[in-house]
Amino acid sequence: MTSIPRIGIDAMGGDFGPSAIADGAVLAFREMPGRFEVTLVGDEPEIRRALKRAHADGLPIQVVHATERIEMAEKAAAAARKKSQSSLGVLTQLHKEGKLDAIFSAGNTGAVVATALLGLGRLESVSRPALAAFMPNPGGGTVVLDVGANAECKASYLVQFAHMGSVYARYLLGRDNPRVGLLSIGEEDTKGNDLVFESLPLLRRANHLNFIGNVEGRDVFRDTCDVVVTDGFTGNVVLKTAESVAGLLFQRIRSEVAGDPMAMLGTVLMKPALRRVMRQIDWEEHAAAPLLGVNGVCFIGHGRSSSRAIRSAIRTVTTFVEKRVNEHIREEIEADRDTAA
Amino acid sequence: MTSIPRIGIDAMGGDFGPSAIADGAVLAFREMPGRFEVTLVGDEPEIRRALKRAHADGLPIQVVHATERIEMAEKAAAAARKKSQSSLGVLTQLHKEGKLDAIFSAGNTGAVVATALLGLGRLESVSRPALAAFMPNPGGGTVVLDVGANAECKASYLVQFAHMGSVYARYLLGRDNPRVGLLSIGEEDTKGNDLVFESLPLLRRANHLNFIGNVEGRDVFRDTCDVVVTDGFTGNVVLKTAESVAGLLFQRIRSEVAGDPMAMLGTVLMKPALRRVMRQIDWEEHAAAPLLGVNGVCFIGHGRSSSRAIRSAIRTVTTFVEKRVNEHIREEIEADRDTAA
Repeated sequence: MTSIPRIGIDAMGGDFGPSAIADGAVLAFREMPGRFEVTLVGDEPEIRRALKRAHADGLPIQVVHATERIEMAEKAAAAARKKSQSSLGVLTQLHKEGKLDAIFSAGNTGAVVATALLGLGRLESVSRPALAAFMPNPGGGTVVLDVGANAECKASYLVQFAHMGSVYARYLLGRDNPRVGLLSIGEEDTKGNDLVFESLPLLRRANHLNFIGNVEGRDVFRDTCDVVVTDGFTGNVVLKTAESVAGLLFQRIRSEVAGDPMAMLGTVLMKPALRRVMRQIDWEEHAAAPLLGVNGVCFIGHGRSSSRAIRSAIRTVTTFVEKRVNEHIREEIEADRDTAA
Repeated sequence: MTSIPRIGIDAMGGDFGPSAIADGAVLAFREMPGRFEVTLVGDEPEIRRALKRAHADGLPIQVVHATERIEMAEKAAAAARKKSQSSLGVLTQLHKEGKLDAIFSAGNTGAVVATALLGLGRLESVSRPALAAFMPNPGGGTVVLDVGANAECKASYLVQFAHMGSVYARYLLGRDNPRVGLLSIGEEDTKGNDLVFESLPLLRRANHLNFIGNVEGRDVFRDTCDVVVTDGFTGNVVLKTAESVAGLLFQRIRSEVAGDPMAMLGTVLMKPALRRVMRQIDWEEHAAAPLLGVNGVCFIGHGRSSSRAIRSAIRTVTTFVEKRVNEHIREEIEADRDTAA
C-alpha cells in the first residue's frame, strides 16, 4: 500500500445514528492510529455535533454532506435507484470515483446491497456478489455466504461463493487452507435439494478449494468447516434463526432471573464465566459483513451496531483493504476458470 | 371413538433402544391409564427384558417380533424398500392392515418417512405429506412444516402444508384460528425466492386459512404465528440451526462454569430459574413430529428420545387419533379445493 485506507461511512445508517458512528470511529483511531482515515457522509450539522460529543478534534475525519437518507423500512431497489443524494448514494459515488478505498453502512441491508451493485458493479469474472456473514463458534467461527444478496442461485454461483469465502477466511480470519462445506440437510451425497445436487460435483471439481462435502445447519456452529456456501435465501434464514434463538434464550433467562433474588445473586457469581462465553460468541466483534465480489470494498453492518461494533467494522474493513482481498478473489476465480475451461 | 387407540412403537428405533421405549410406555400408562394400548415391534427377547426391567407386567402391551432393524446411518430409501422385515417395516404393515391406529419411531427419520410414504400412501387429495416440527417459544410454540420430507416443493404443496399445519395447531395445540406465516427473508411481499413469490398469492386466496403473510426466521421463536410453512430443505435447516445454537450456548456456559467455583455456586442458585426456562423451551415435551398427509398416523421422534420424550410422544399420538385429525385434514383440503375450483 502506498497510502492508508480511506474508509467512507454512512453516518445516517444504523439505529443509533451519527453518535454511535462518531464514537466508534474515535475508538478505532485510538486502537489503530495512523492505519486509516475516515470520511463520514450524511447530515453535516448532525455529524459535526456527534464528532464534538465524541471528542474527535484533531483526528483525520472528513465530513461530506448528503441531503437525503434511506430509512430502515424503505424498499431496497427503489431507494437505491431514486435516492442518489442519500448518504448511501453519495458514499457509493465517492468510492466509485476513487476518492474512497472502502465504504461501510449499518443501514438498510437491502438498500446497501442494491446501491453497491448498481453503483460499483461486479469484479471482473464474478457472476454474483454475495453477502458473507461471520458466525462465531468455539472453533473460531465460520463464514457463511450468501446470506441475502441472491435469493435464487445457480450452482455456478455457489462455486464462486466458495472461492470468495475461502479468500476471505484466509486473509481475514487467518485460516491456512479453509475447509469449505455445502449447506444441505445431511452429509450424504444423496441428501439435498436440486441446487445441492447440481453444486456438489462442481465444487468437487473446482481447483484451489479445500471442499469437504455437504454439511448441516449444525456445522455452522461447530469447528467442522471455515466456510459454508448456500443460496442467499437459506443463508439469510440461518442467520436470522441463529440470532433469534440466542436472543430468546438470554431473554427468557433474564426474565426468569428477574423475579428470583437467589437467581439474581447467582448471575452475579456467574458473571465472569458468562462474560467469557459472550466474548467467544461476540457478534459485535464481527458485525461487518462484506459484500464479496463487487468492484470495490463494501461492508454492511447490523442495524443495531453500537460504537464497539463500528470500531470492529473499521478494523475489519482496514484489514480487507490492506490485504488486497479483492485482487486475491479475482486471481482465485480466474485460476479456477482457466483450469476448468 | 368406539375403542382406544392402538399405538405401535418401533422398539429398535432411537439411540437408547428398547429400554427407553419400555420405560416411556410405562410412564405414559401411569399418566393416562386406559386411554391407549401399545404394541412394541422389534427383537422380542430384548423387548421382553426391557419390559421386565420397566415393571410393565399387567399393562396392555403386546410384543411383535421383527428380525431386522434399520440403523441410524442407513440410506433411507434403500432401507425402506429392502428391509420389509425390519421393526419399522413390520410396524408399518400392521398399521396398513388396520391392526394399529398409529405408529411411532424414533429411528432414522429418512427411513421412517420413506417407509410410511411407501407403505401407507397419501391421504386422498394430499399431494405431498410433510413432516411438522413443533418449535417451543414463549408464545406456546410454533408448528413448522415441512422440515424434511420434501426438499423441493411447489407452491401448491405449501398451501396444503398450511392447511395441514392449521388443523394440527387447532386440534393438538388448541389454537382457535391459527395464524399461518410463509417463511421468507423479509415481511415485505417483494422479498423472497421464487417459491415464496409463487406461494404468496395462492396462500392469500386459500379459504379457511388465517394467513398473515411472509414471516422471517426469527418469527419461529416469537409469538407472531402458530404455523410456519416452508419447503423441506429450508425447514430442516431451520430446525438443525435452532437445535445447535441452543446446544452450543448451554455447552459453552457449562464448560466455562466448570472451572470457576463461584460460577458453579451461581448455577446452583440459578437452578430453579433455569429449570423454568428449560420447561418453556422443552424439546422433550414435543419430541414427536407427525408426518401429516399420509394415509395413516405416523409420528417420528428424535433419535436421542429419552423415556420422558417417549411418554410425551405417546400422549401426542393418542390425542391425534382421538381427535381424528386426519379426517379434519381431508375435509379442510377438500373444502379449499372445492372453493378454489
